[in-house]
Amino acid sequence: MASVSRVLNGLPATEEMVERVQRAVEQLGYVPDSRARSLKVGRTFQLTLAVADVGNPVYVTMMRAVEEVVSAAGYRLVVTTTGPDVVDEVALVRGMARGYADGLVISPLRVDDDLIKSIQECEVPVVVAGNVPARAGVDTVRANSPKGMLLAVEHLLAKGRRRIAFVNGPVDTVPGAARAKGFAEAMKANGLQPVAEVEAVDFTFPAGREAGDELFSKLDNRAPLGLDAVIAANDLLAVGLMHELAARGLVVPDDVAVVGMDDSELAEQSFPPLTSVNLGSAERGRRAAELLLARIEDDTRAPRRIVVQPTLSVRKSTP
Amino acid sequence: MASVSRVLNGLPATEEMVERVQRAVEQLGYVPDSRARSLKVGRTFQLTLAVADVGNPVYVTMMRAVEEVVSAAGYRLVVTTTGPDVVDEVALVRGMARGYADGLVISPLRVDDDLIKSIQECEVPVVVAGNVPARAGVDTVRANSPKGMLLAVEHLLAKGRRRIAFVNGPVDTVPGAARAKGFAEAMKANGLQPVAEVEAVDFTFPAGREAGDELFSKLDNRAPLGLDAVIAANDLLAVGLMHELAARGLVVPDDVAVVGMDDSELAEQSFPPLTSVNLGSAERGRRAAELLLARIEDDTRAPRRIVVQPTLSVRKSTP
Repeated sequence: MASVSRVLNGLPATEEMVERVQRAVEQLGYVPDSRARSLKVGRTFQLTLAVADVGNPVYVTMMRAVEEVVSAAGYRLVVTTTGPDVVDEVALVRGMARGYADGLVISPLRVDDDLIKSIQECEVPVVVAGNVPARAGVDTVRANSPKGMLLAVEHLLAKGRRRIAFVNGPVDTVPGAARAKGFAEAMKANGLQPVAEVEAVDFTFPAGREAGDELFSKLDNRAPLGLDAVIAANDLLAVGLMHELAARGLVVPDDVAVVGMDDSELAEQSFPPLTSVNLGSAERGRRAAELLLARIEDDTRAPRRIVVQPTLSVRKSTP
Repeated sequence: MASVSRVLNGLPATEEMVERVQRAVEQLGYVPDSRARSLKVGRTFQLTLAVADVGNPVYVTMMRAVEEVVSAAGYRLVVTTTGPDVVDEVALVRGMARGYADGLVISPLRVDDDLIKSIQECEVPVVVAGNVPARAGVDTVRANSPKGMLLAVEHLLAKGRRRIAFVNGPVDTVPGAARAKGFAEAMKANGLQPVAEVEAVDFTFPAGREAGDELFSKLDNRAPLGLDAVIAANDLLAVGLMHELAARGLVVPDDVAVVGMDDSELAEQSFPPLTSVNLGSAERGRRAAELLLARIEDDTRAPRRIVVQPTLSVRKSTP
């Protein structure tokens, strides 16, 4: 029963099985719908966006943008969470064979060869919102973290802040690695040495609080305060850090300026509102959705690799 | 072709068509899997959670809870956004017939007869996380807003605040109507008159800022300040309001205490951290997921109506 269904839905089956099923179907006297048969798509009118953590507001921005594009094309968008582990990302991509969506945009936190292989072999079109090697041969849309870091550092310099610390997320993630590299380059390009660097356990608010606490334990041996600005690798880490600053009686931005990254809805909601590097999550979502729709239309087109440039949204957490 | 697939997947088909297909399948020599045939479910191993706005952090809490339960049962959870309009909620429920998920938890912002009808007729089991009439005969899990409002009012009273204003969301929504009623009852039960009431255009942060502005234009004609506490119908409205208080030089909680509702992740992230009525969104998510799994197992069981009781999470936005 399951095998018949597999064949009719275009899922993998032995050649013998395909023949037997097709013969039986012909005996029934139905004319196959060639459009339905030629496309693997169009079965569900549903597209999936897979992100590491749906509680991270950067993905909300991306989701709204993806949804706008795909719903205009007649698809419903559903969002699913992979968590931070690459094995769960791979399971999600492999699970697409179950046929519950016609395409996938995945924003992976970690990338390995298994993930790339699962994307290449996926039964439905996949677009990566993130950074995978060109050799993978898949459509990608990514941010330019190094350029974003440069905007953050140069904004702080322009405001007279030179004693800059950095709160990053895990450096074994794609964004963590990109931001570590970008921060080092941006500081060097401006002749600056970081006051301190801390690596949070993940990209969440509680991790930002812990990292802020660790930052101060590193600085305690130095006098005076030792820093006048902090760049955080995302808005949740920045807001967590700001709570630790407040707990120590430090005023943002008078004592310490804070710059986040992602320019999520939280940046506007936080107090003071957070200056944040906009890494183009809405634009990346739009472009990824467009690439996915184009790939669904024509699976033979050459893979595209798009880079979206950052901007800086200045708010009251910097002078 | 489509008809064969419909029959094999247990979707509606004429009796004659079912017989012809079953005969053909028997000729193929496959033994039908009776468990798979007796259930309409198990086709996608995917369950859907539909919420009004995935950018509202209360749904993040609910989503994490639903996901925990359904993933332990071997299902993937996907989340989709209906928006605030009942026609889009109805379209989502009707669209479940496309077979892209085995069940649905929907948290509707607005409910009408069309929505109830679409749920009753839905091809897959549906559980409502919200309030629909008992006559609908569907599994529901809902909050107790009136009790939550009583917790908020009595907490403020215990802290010596009696001049209380209320920022609600739209009263033509299910939560807006419940909270309006609950606030009126809680104030009356404590012999209080509200200082002012404002209705925001929706349940978002920008709407909270606008409502805060409107609140102050209502109060301007009165002296002195006229209020020492505000209850907001959710955390996003509360945080929007707190920005308006800060813009007027008012300190939370010294000048004005603020209580939100939902006890979302934003309550902890906001500054000062927000005292908030926990309407049990995690517990509601868990119970809704359990009801859905039970309904998938046995579609003949009597509908259950569960009410989850609120608690108060006290933080620094109240004295």
